[in-house]
Amino acid sequence: MNSFVLKGDICYSIDKDTLCTIENGYCVCVDTVSKGVFTTLPKEYSTLPLYDYSGKLIIPGLVDLHIHAPQFAFRGLNMDSELLSWLNENAFPEEAKFADLSYAKKAYTIFAEALKNSVTTRACIFATLHKEATLLLMELMEKSGLISFVGKVNMDRNSPDILIEESAEKSAKDTESWVLSAIGKFDNTFPIITPRFIPSCTDELMEKLGKLAKKHKLSAQSHLSENKDEIKWVAELCPDAKSYGDAYDKFGLFGKDTKTIMAHCVYSGDDEVEHMKENGVFIAHCPASNTNLTSGIAPVRAYLDKGLKVGIGSDVAGGHTESLFRAISDTIQVSKLYHRLVDNTAKPVTFSEAFFLSSKGGGEFFGKVGSFEDDYEFDAVVIDDSVLPHPQELSVKERLERSVYLNADLLGITAKFVRGKKII
Amino acid sequence: MNSFVLKGDICYSIDKDTLCTIENGYCVCVDTVSKGVFTTLPKEYSTLPLYDYSGKLIIPGLVDLHIHAPQFAFRGLNMDSELLSWLNENAFPEEAKFADLSYAKKAYTIFAEALKNSVTTRACIFATLHKEATLLLMELMEKSGLISFVGKVNMDRNSPDILIEESAEKSAKDTESWVLSAIGKFDNTFPIITPRFIPSCTDELMEKLGKLAKKHKLSAQSHLSENKDEIKWVAELCPDAKSYGDAYDKFGLFGKDTKTIMAHCVYSGDDEVEHMKENGVFIAHCPASNTNLTSGIAPVRAYLDKGLKVGIGSDVAGGHTESLFRAISDTIQVSKLYHRLVDNTAKPVTFSEAFFLSSKGGGEFFGKVGSFEDDYEFDAVVIDDSVLPHPQELSVKERLERSVYLNADLLGITAKFVRGKKII
Repeated sequence: MNSFVLKGDICYSIDKDTLCTIENGYCVCVDTVSKGVFTTLPKEYSTLPLYDYSGKLIIPGLVDLHIHAPQFAFRGLNMDSELLSWLNENAFPEEAKFADLSYAKKAYTIFAEALKNSVTTRACIFATLHKEATLLLMELMEKSGLISFVGKVNMDRNSPDILIEESAEKSAKDTESWVLSAIGKFDNTFPIITPRFIPSCTDELMEKLGKLAKKHKLSAQSHLSENKDEIKWVAELCPDAKSYGDAYDKFGLFGKDTKTIMAHCVYSGDDEVEHMKENGVFIAHCPASNTNLTSGIAPVRAYLDKGLKVGIGSDVAGGHTESLFRAISDTIQVSKLYHRLVDNTAKPVTFSEAFFLSSKGGGEFFGKVGSFEDDYEFDAVVIDDSVLPHPQELSVKERLERSVYLNADLLGITAKFVRGKKII
Repeated sequence: MNSFVLKGDICYSIDKDTLCTIENGYCVCVDTVSKGVFTTLPKEYSTLPLYDYSGKLIIPGLVDLHIHAPQFAFRGLNMDSELLSWLNENAFPEEAKFADLSYAKKAYTIFAEALKNSVTTRACIFATLHKEATLLLMELMEKSGLISFVGKVNMDRNSPDILIEESAEKSAKDTESWVLSAIGKFDNTFPIITPRFIPSCTDELMEKLGKLAKKHKLSAQSHLSENKDEIKWVAELCPDAKSYGDAYDKFGLFGKDTKTIMAHCVYSGDDEVEHMKENGVFIAHCPASNTNLTSGIAPVRAYLDKGLKVGIGSDVAGGHTESLFRAISDTIQVSKLYHRLVDNTAKPVTFSEAFFLSSKGGGEFFGKVGSFEDDYEFDAVVIDDSVLPHPQELSVKERLERSVYLNADLLGITAKFVRGKKII
């Protein structure tokens, strides 16, 4: 059941500069794992069941390194404000509603269904500080068939009364009890330590979270250097930290033993960048969010040149859409504006690079994920791009680029496989 | 037949700061003209046929001030290059194909059909230099039911052999013969003088085109100050002109007696801006194109503050999509990056302002167009936003903003009226 062949027009990245496309090719999944891509089907796989998607595009499932599930309800709403006021006016009041499990069920059902129907097969998700609602989200994500890390958010300071934990101790205790109920409960859904960001978490809480991550061998995710006001605030809150990133590192929540994703990194200084590289921190680049919240443009070209680990995040609802096709074109577009307006030595991100970031780049957080190369976990999405008629001949690569820019994913996807299991 | 009532959730701009929304309201069309919007249907209109779009959004048809029909085939393709190389490698070779009428028919049919199914009701369109293919495009646009200006493009220098007119004289002669076959032939489709841009047209040709515009009382459209290399080139080509814009004005193709649209205006200097204001030139702001071709960001805030005439252009295929919903959110997004990265005194464009630009702002080029106010020509589009489920209550304005950001238009529109005629 987890071994089969897909036939169609296949696209996948080997590295950031190498986007392979094979017209009328075969990709083979044996026991949930890719055996590679072939122009002619090798004899040894000829008895496997074959899904014939001739004329359609087959791509690896894409990876969303940063998305807020409770914010999905207000994506594309009230976008005329900046980060800190946007958090207070939009994000916090909406997240507070998730104390109510029946609201959470309604909202998270819509979220999980949308993600299931998107080009995303793997995601790193922020929930809220509510442990019951977070478990519920994990159940819904498990049901969706996607593979995800889900984090109960921690926040014990600088937060509104409607959305704050009463103490560091209570926050850590709730987190451990949630971790214990979540660990091992699901096949595809895993807990991840999720301090909202430094301004929301006391040192005491951060210390406890660092220990929890270590104790239960958990990964971590948070926000980093998104907005200049925020960075200034962190510097005031953590006078001893050498950088915003260092404030996480002090508590063991910045890579090294704790695999960590940091979203944004728009204004990371040289030290912080070097620190991320040393520690193997994953950067979740969130171009739509950084634009919508007037944060700026992250210097992705520099991160790529320096060999940092980078993936893409939709960052709903700072980002207004879960579509990673849109996130790919956003990545390219903002890099062009960065080149033109900020640093003309930073070459724009190419289509091949951005596609890599959305698949194999972010996929690395999950292991061997995001490609059809031999031995990669088999995630695939099939797109019917015949919905976009054209008068001329197009290559497979051109069809992929066009499908991405024109958001063919919004018109529905044809099929979806996650670790060898067909979920659509 | 051209008098009716629409019932639904109505949104329209009165001015850039005033976006009116009426839940469960009525807009009335009498003899192709709007009679205003009402919360209760006035008795005098109660006998008119009523289209019940309860629960759906009703907006004025949107206006695309700048789009290249022959480039539609390669929208979203080969986007990894800048303006001048992009023209040579992509635009010119594709446009050259329109010498072949059977190719033109195939391509333009796809274009007209897509525009018909979009939120656009009015458009200012560049064709190619081929007069037969341009007439064919006009026939297809007329059939679509939309209202448009269509221009046979002029180019007699600095163009590749496959796409150049043999002389100024021949270009002008072909243009006049095309104008004569097009004037008065259609109800909704009108010729417009369309020099590609200064680099493509000799002074001799520009002079003839200026005279043609005057003689036949035609409007004009072209490109202005899109890219720094282009501006430098124009300064070399036209040493006597005070600015790029002045190079058009010398030939009477820059507003005043000849109503003129200039696309882009990314790098217009103070003189040029003042010149546009004095002459009443319409600026077609094309944010996606200016991003995709790494041109930069036009200072739309300054244009609004100075009271210039501004509308929005999709600029397919520098812009990758014909969707004006996307162009609205692009307008907001790039203005935020302009504020953050270029000039922090230039406030970002608000949703209300961007919606105004896409409707009433550009609509002014067509007359009283782009609003449901009393006496406006009645163009309307109905959007079913129930395709975007949400757990919370939303106001009509929120539903509109969300539909725009999430490109609900790509999922299909429910109905469309152009100057009082139902075309979908």
